[in-house]
Amino acid sequence: MSDAFQDHYADTFAHCYGCGRLNADGYQLKSYWDGEESVCRFEPRPYHTGGFPEYVYGGLIASLVDCHSAATAAAAKARADGHALGSRPLDRFVTASLKVDFIKPTPLRTICLRGRVVELTKRKAIVQTTVAVDGVVCASGEAVMVKLPDPS
Amino acid sequence: MSDAFQDHYADTFAHCYGCGRLNADGYQLKSYWDGEESVCRFEPRPYHTGGFPEYVYGGLIASLVDCHSAATAAAAKARADGHALGSRPLDRFVTASLKVDFIKPTPLRTICLRGRVVELTKRKAIVQTTVAVDGVVCASGEAVMVKLPDPS
Repeated sequence: MSDAFQDHYADTFAHCYGCGRLNADGYQLKSYWDGEESVCRFEPRPYHTGGFPEYVYGGLIASLVDCHSAATAAAAKARADGHALGSRPLDRFVTASLKVDFIKPTPLRTICLRGRVVELTKRKAIVQTTVAVDGVVCASGEAVMVKLPDPS
Repeated sequence: MSDAFQDHYADTFAHCYGCGRLNADGYQLKSYWDGEESVCRFEPRPYHTGGFPEYVYGGLIASLVDCHSAATAAAAKARADGHALGSRPLDRFVTASLKVDFIKPTPLRTICLRGRVVELTKRKAIVQTTVAVDGVVCASGEAVMVKLPDPS
Protein backbone atom coordinates (compact mmCIF):
# COMPACT_ATOMS: atom_id res chain seq x y z
CA MET A 1 0.00 0.00 0.00
CA SER A 2 1.11 3.57 -0.56
CA ASP A 3 1.52 6.00 2.31
CA ALA A 4 -1.18 8.33 0.99
CA PHE A 5 -3.86 8.81 3.62
CA GLN A 6 -6.70 8.19 1.18
CA ASP A 7 -5.36 4.76 0.25
CA HIS A 8 -6.19 3.63 3.78
CA TYR A 9 -9.89 4.43 3.82
CA ALA A 10 -12.13 1.35 4.07
CA ASP A 11 -13.60 0.47 0.66
CA THR A 12 -17.03 1.60 1.89
CA PHE A 13 -15.73 5.13 2.23
CA ALA A 14 -13.50 5.32 -0.85
CA HIS A 15 -15.95 6.54 -3.50
CA CYS A 16 -15.47 10.29 -3.21
CA TYR A 17 -15.10 12.18 -6.49
CA GLY A 18 -12.44 14.30 -4.83
CA CYS A 19 -10.35 11.68 -3.08
CA GLY A 20 -11.77 8.17 -3.43
CA ARG A 21 -9.36 5.62 -4.84
CA LEU A 22 -12.41 3.65 -6.06
CA ASN A 23 -13.81 6.59 -8.06
CA ALA A 24 -12.26 6.13 -11.51
CA ASP A 25 -13.68 9.44 -12.78
CA GLY A 26 -12.53 11.59 -9.86
CA TYR A 27 -9.43 13.48 -8.81
CA GLN A 28 -8.01 10.70 -6.62
CA LEU A 29 -6.38 13.27 -4.39
CA LYS A 30 -3.42 12.00 -2.32
CA SER A 31 -2.30 13.51 0.98
CA TYR A 32 0.86 12.73 2.93
CA TRP A 33 2.59 13.73 6.14
CA ASP A 34 5.40 16.24 5.99
CA GLY A 35 6.31 16.51 9.65
CA GLU A 36 3.41 18.06 11.51
CA GLU A 37 1.83 19.24 8.30
CA SER A 38 -0.08 17.27 5.71
CA VAL A 39 0.67 18.03 2.11
CA CYS A 40 -1.10 17.35 -1.16
CA ARG A 41 -0.40 18.41 -4.72
CA PHE A 42 -2.92 18.61 -7.52
CA GLU A 43 -2.55 19.29 -11.21
CA PRO A 44 -5.65 21.12 -12.44
CA ARG A 45 -6.95 20.22 -15.89
CA PRO A 46 -6.96 22.93 -18.58
CA TYR A 47 -10.74 23.20 -18.30
CA HIS A 48 -10.71 23.89 -14.54
CA THR A 49 -10.70 27.59 -15.27
CA GLY A 50 -12.55 30.20 -13.31
CA GLY A 51 -14.57 33.08 -14.71
CA PHE A 52 -11.66 33.92 -16.95
CA PRO A 53 -8.92 31.66 -18.34
CA GLU A 54 -5.53 30.97 -16.73
CA TYR A 55 -6.97 30.84 -13.21
CA VAL A 56 -8.67 28.05 -11.31
CA TYR A 57 -12.37 28.15 -10.44
CA GLY A 58 -13.20 28.60 -6.77
CA GLY A 59 -15.18 25.39 -6.49
CA LEU A 60 -12.08 23.34 -7.22
CA ILE A 61 -10.18 25.10 -4.45
CA ALA A 62 -13.02 24.37 -2.04
CA SER A 63 -13.09 20.72 -3.13
CA LEU A 64 -9.37 20.28 -2.58
CA VAL A 65 -9.48 21.93 0.84
CA ASP A 66 -12.45 19.77 1.80
CA CYS A 67 -10.95 16.41 0.82
CA HIS A 68 -7.46 17.22 2.08
CA SER A 69 -8.92 18.29 5.44
CA ALA A 70 -10.93 15.08 5.78
CA ALA A 71 -7.85 12.98 5.13
CA THR A 72 -5.70 15.08 7.44
CA ALA A 73 -8.24 14.67 10.23
CA ALA A 74 -8.28 10.90 9.75
CA ALA A 75 -4.50 10.59 9.67
CA ALA A 76 -4.10 12.82 12.71
CA LYS A 77 -6.62 10.74 14.62
CA ALA A 78 -4.71 7.55 13.77
CA ARG A 79 -1.45 9.15 14.82
CA ALA A 80 -2.96 10.37 18.09
CA ASP A 81 -4.34 6.87 18.73
CA GLY A 82 -0.89 5.37 18.13
CA HIS A 83 -1.87 3.49 14.96
CA ALA A 84 0.76 3.42 12.23
CA LEU A 85 -0.56 4.39 8.80
CA GLY A 86 -1.53 1.19 7.02
CA SER A 87 -1.96 -0.89 10.15
CA ARG A 88 -5.76 -0.61 9.87
CA PRO A 89 -8.33 1.36 7.82
CA LEU A 90 -8.45 5.03 8.74
CA ASP A 91 -11.48 6.49 10.44
CA ARG A 92 -13.63 8.43 8.00
CA PHE A 93 -14.28 12.07 8.75
CA VAL A 94 -16.93 14.11 6.96
CA THR A 95 -17.27 17.85 6.79
CA ALA A 96 -19.52 19.71 9.21
CA SER A 97 -18.47 23.11 7.92
CA LEU A 98 -16.00 24.49 5.43
CA LYS A 99 -14.71 28.03 5.14
CA VAL A 100 -12.47 29.18 2.33
CA ASP A 101 -10.93 32.63 2.02
CA PHE A 102 -9.84 33.50 -1.49
CA ILE A 103 -6.85 35.78 -1.16
CA LYS A 104 -5.86 36.14 -4.80
CA PRO A 105 -6.57 34.35 -8.09
CA THR A 106 -5.05 30.85 -8.16
CA PRO A 107 -3.06 30.22 -11.36
CA LEU A 108 -3.87 27.10 -13.38
CA ARG A 109 -0.69 25.30 -12.36
CA THR A 110 0.31 22.73 -9.75
CA ILE A 111 -1.59 23.51 -6.55
CA CYS A 112 0.00 22.68 -3.21
CA LEU A 113 -2.15 22.32 -0.10
CA ARG A 114 -0.73 22.20 3.39
CA GLY A 115 -2.90 21.25 6.34
CA ARG A 116 -2.48 21.50 10.07
CA VAL A 117 -4.77 20.11 12.75
CA VAL A 118 -5.51 22.82 15.29
CA GLU A 119 -8.01 20.86 17.38
CA LEU A 120 -8.56 17.14 17.76
CA THR A 121 -10.98 15.26 19.96
CA LYS A 122 -12.41 11.74 19.78
CA ARG A 123 -15.00 12.68 17.20
CA LYS A 124 -14.00 16.07 15.84
CA ALA A 125 -11.05 17.76 14.18
CA ILE A 126 -10.46 21.28 13.00
CA VAL A 127 -8.03 21.56 10.10
CA GLN A 128 -6.51 24.74 8.71
CA THR A 129 -5.14 24.68 5.19
CA THR A 130 -3.17 26.90 2.87
CA VAL A 131 -3.49 26.68 -0.89
CA ALA A 132 -0.41 27.83 -2.78
CA VAL A 133 0.97 27.94 -6.31
CA ASP A 134 4.72 28.41 -6.80
CA GLY A 135 5.03 29.15 -3.08
CA VAL A 136 2.47 31.95 -3.12
CA VAL A 137 -0.55 31.41 -0.89
CA CYS A 138 -3.70 32.12 -2.91
CA ALA A 139 -6.36 30.82 -0.52
CA SER A 140 -6.77 29.47 2.98
CA GLY A 141 -9.31 27.14 4.49
CA GLU A 142 -10.70 25.96 7.77
CA ALA A 143 -12.75 22.79 8.02
CA VAL A 144 -14.60 21.29 10.93
CA MET A 145 -14.55 17.54 10.42
CA VAL A 146 -16.63 14.96 12.27
CA LYS A 147 -15.82 11.27 12.51
CA LEU A 148 -18.36 8.84 11.08
CA PRO A 149 -19.27 5.78 13.11
CA ASP A 150 -17.28 2.70 12.08
CA PRO A 151 -18.80 0.88 9.08
CA SER A 152 -20.90 -2.07 10.19
CA MET B 1 -30.77 35.20 -25.04
CA SER B 2 -32.07 33.14 -22.15
CA ASP B 3 -32.93 34.71 -18.82
CA ALA B 4 -30.28 32.74 -16.95
CA PHE B 5 -27.94 35.11 -15.14
CA GLN B 6 -24.80 33.37 -16.40
CA ASP B 7 -25.80 33.88 -20.03
CA HIS B 8 -25.28 37.59 -19.51
CA TYR B 9 -21.66 37.57 -18.37
CA ALA B 10 -19.27 39.24 -20.79
CA ASP B 11 -17.39 36.65 -22.85
CA THR B 12 -14.19 37.52 -20.95
CA PHE B 13 -15.76 36.23 -17.74
CA ALA B 14 -17.66 33.22 -19.09
CA HIS B 15 -15.00 30.48 -18.79
CA CYS B 16 -15.77 29.14 -15.33
CA TYR B 17 -15.92 25.35 -15.01
CA GLY B 18 -18.90 25.78 -12.71
CA CYS B 19 -20.97 28.31 -14.58
CA GLY B 20 -19.29 29.55 -17.76
CA ARG B 21 -21.35 29.19 -20.91
CA LEU B 22 -18.05 29.12 -22.85
CA ASN B 23 -16.64 26.18 -20.86
CA ALA B 24 -17.76 23.15 -22.85
CA ASP B 25 -16.46 20.70 -20.22
CA GLY B 26 -18.06 22.38 -17.21
CA TYR B 27 -21.38 22.30 -15.40
CA GLN B 28 -22.82 25.35 -17.18
CA LEU B 29 -24.87 26.19 -14.11
CA LYS B 30 -27.94 28.38 -14.74
CA SER B 31 -29.51 30.65 -12.14
CA TYR B 32 -32.82 32.53 -12.39
CA TRP B 33 -34.94 34.88 -10.35
CA ASP B 34 -37.89 33.50 -8.47
CA GLY B 35 -39.23 36.63 -6.82
CA GLU B 36 -36.67 37.88 -4.32
CA GLU B 37 -34.81 34.58 -4.40
CA SER B 38 -32.49 33.20 -7.05
CA VAL B 39 -32.91 29.57 -7.91
CA CYS B 40 -30.75 27.03 -9.68
CA ARG B 41 -31.12 23.31 -10.25
CA PHE B 42 -28.33 20.87 -10.94
CA GLU B 43 -28.36 17.21 -11.88
CA PRO B 44 -25.27 15.54 -10.39
CA ARG B 45 -23.54 12.90 -12.49
CA PRO B 46 -23.44 9.32 -11.15
CA TYR B 47 -19.73 9.72 -10.33
CA HIS B 48 -20.22 12.86 -8.19
CA THR B 49 -20.41 10.64 -5.14
CA GLY B 50 -18.98 11.45 -1.76
CA GLY B 51 -17.03 9.12 0.49
CA PHE B 52 -19.72 6.55 -0.01
CA PRO B 53 -22.13 6.03 -2.92
CA GLU B 54 -25.62 7.53 -3.25
CA TYR B 55 -24.57 10.87 -1.75
CA VAL B 56 -22.88 13.88 -3.32
CA TYR B 57 -19.32 14.89 -2.46
CA GLY B 58 -18.93 18.07 -0.47
CA GLY B 59 -16.76 19.83 -3.03
CA LEU B 60 -19.61 19.80 -5.53
CA ILE B 61 -21.93 21.44 -3.00
CA ALA B 62 -19.32 24.13 -2.36
CA SER B 63 -18.87 24.67 -6.11
CA LEU B 64 -22.59 25.09 -6.70
CA VAL B 65 -22.97 27.51 -3.79
CA ASP B 66 -19.98 29.49 -5.03
CA CYS B 67 -21.12 29.91 -8.63
CA HIS B 68 -24.77 30.46 -7.76
CA SER B 69 -23.78 33.15 -5.26
CA ALA B 70 -21.59 34.94 -7.80
CA ALA B 71 -24.43 35.01 -10.31
CA THR B 72 -26.96 36.08 -7.70
CA ALA B 73 -24.73 38.96 -6.64
CA ALA B 74 -24.38 40.11 -10.24
CA ALA B 75 -28.08 39.88 -10.99
CA ALA B 76 -28.99 41.67 -7.75
CA LYS B 77 -26.55 44.46 -8.58
CA ALA B 78 -28.12 44.89 -12.03
CA ARG B 79 -31.59 44.92 -10.51
CA ALA B 80 -30.55 47.50 -7.90
CA ASP B 81 -29.02 49.64 -10.65
CA GLY B 82 -32.25 49.47 -12.63
CA HIS B 83 -30.80 47.46 -15.53
CA ALA B 84 -33.10 44.83 -17.01
CA LEU B 85 -31.48 41.42 -17.39
CA GLY B 86 -30.08 41.21 -20.91
CA SER B 87 -29.87 44.95 -21.46
CA ARG B 88 -26.08 44.87 -20.90
CA PRO B 89 -23.44 42.38 -19.67
CA LEU B 90 -23.68 41.68 -15.95
CA ASP B 91 -20.97 42.81 -13.61
CA ARG B 92 -18.69 39.94 -12.62
CA PHE B 93 -18.39 39.14 -8.94
CA VAL B 94 -15.70 36.86 -7.53
CA THR B 95 -15.62 35.16 -4.17
CA ALA B 96 -13.79 36.73 -1.26
CA SER B 97 -14.93 34.06 1.17
CA LEU B 98 -17.20 31.06 1.13
CA LYS B 99 -18.70 29.21 4.07
CA VAL B 100 -20.68 26.02 3.72
CA ASP B 101 -22.44 24.19 6.54
CA PHE B 102 -23.17 20.57 5.77
CA ILE B 103 -26.35 19.71 7.64
CA LYS B 104 -26.96 16.19 6.37
CA PRO B 105 -25.78 14.01 3.47
CA THR B 106 -27.02 15.30 0.11
CA PRO B 107 -28.59 12.53 -1.99
CA LEU B 108 -27.36 12.07 -5.56
CA ARG B 109 -30.50 13.51 -7.12
CA THR B 110 -31.57 16.89 -8.48
CA ILE B 111 -30.10 19.60 -6.26
CA CYS B 112 -31.99 22.86 -5.81
CA LEU B 113 -30.16 25.98 -4.63
CA ARG B 114 -31.96 29.08 -3.45
CA GLY B 115 -30.06 32.29 -2.87
CA ARG B 116 -30.89 35.55 -1.17
CA VAL B 117 -28.84 38.72 -1.07
CA VAL B 118 -28.57 39.93 2.51
CA GLU B 119 -26.20 42.81 1.88
CA LEU B 120 -25.43 44.76 -1.28
CA THR B 121 -23.15 47.72 -1.80
CA LYS B 122 -21.46 49.12 -4.91
CA ARG B 123 -18.67 46.59 -4.82
CA LYS B 124 -19.76 43.86 -2.43
CA ALA B 125 -22.61 41.44 -1.92
CA ILE B 126 -23.30 38.85 0.73
CA VAL B 127 -25.40 35.95 -0.49
CA GLN B 128 -26.99 33.25 1.66
CA THR B 129 -27.95 30.00 0.01
CA THR B 130 -29.80 26.82 0.86
CA VAL B 131 -29.06 23.52 -0.86
CA ALA B 132 -31.99 21.12 -0.93
CA VAL B 133 -32.98 17.78 -2.43
CA ASP B 134 -36.66 16.88 -2.61
CA GLY B 135 -37.44 19.91 -0.46
CA VAL B 136 -35.10 18.87 2.36
CA VAL B 137 -32.31 21.34 3.11
CA CYS B 138 -29.01 19.43 3.27
CA ALA B 139 -26.55 22.34 3.37
CA SER B 140 -26.44 26.09 3.62
CA GLY B 141 -23.92 28.61 2.40
CA GLU B 142 -22.82 32.18 2.84
CA ALA B 143 -20.58 33.86 0.30
CA VAL B 144 -18.96 37.27 0.34
CA MET B 145 -18.70 38.37 -3.28
CA VAL B 146 -16.67 41.27 -4.63
CA LYS B 147 -17.23 42.99 -7.96
CA LEU B 148 -14.38 42.90 -10.46
CA PRO B 149 -13.49 46.08 -12.32
CA ASP B 150 -15.13 46.27 -15.74
CA PRO B 151 -13.17 44.41 -18.44
CA SER B 152 -11.02 46.82 -20.40
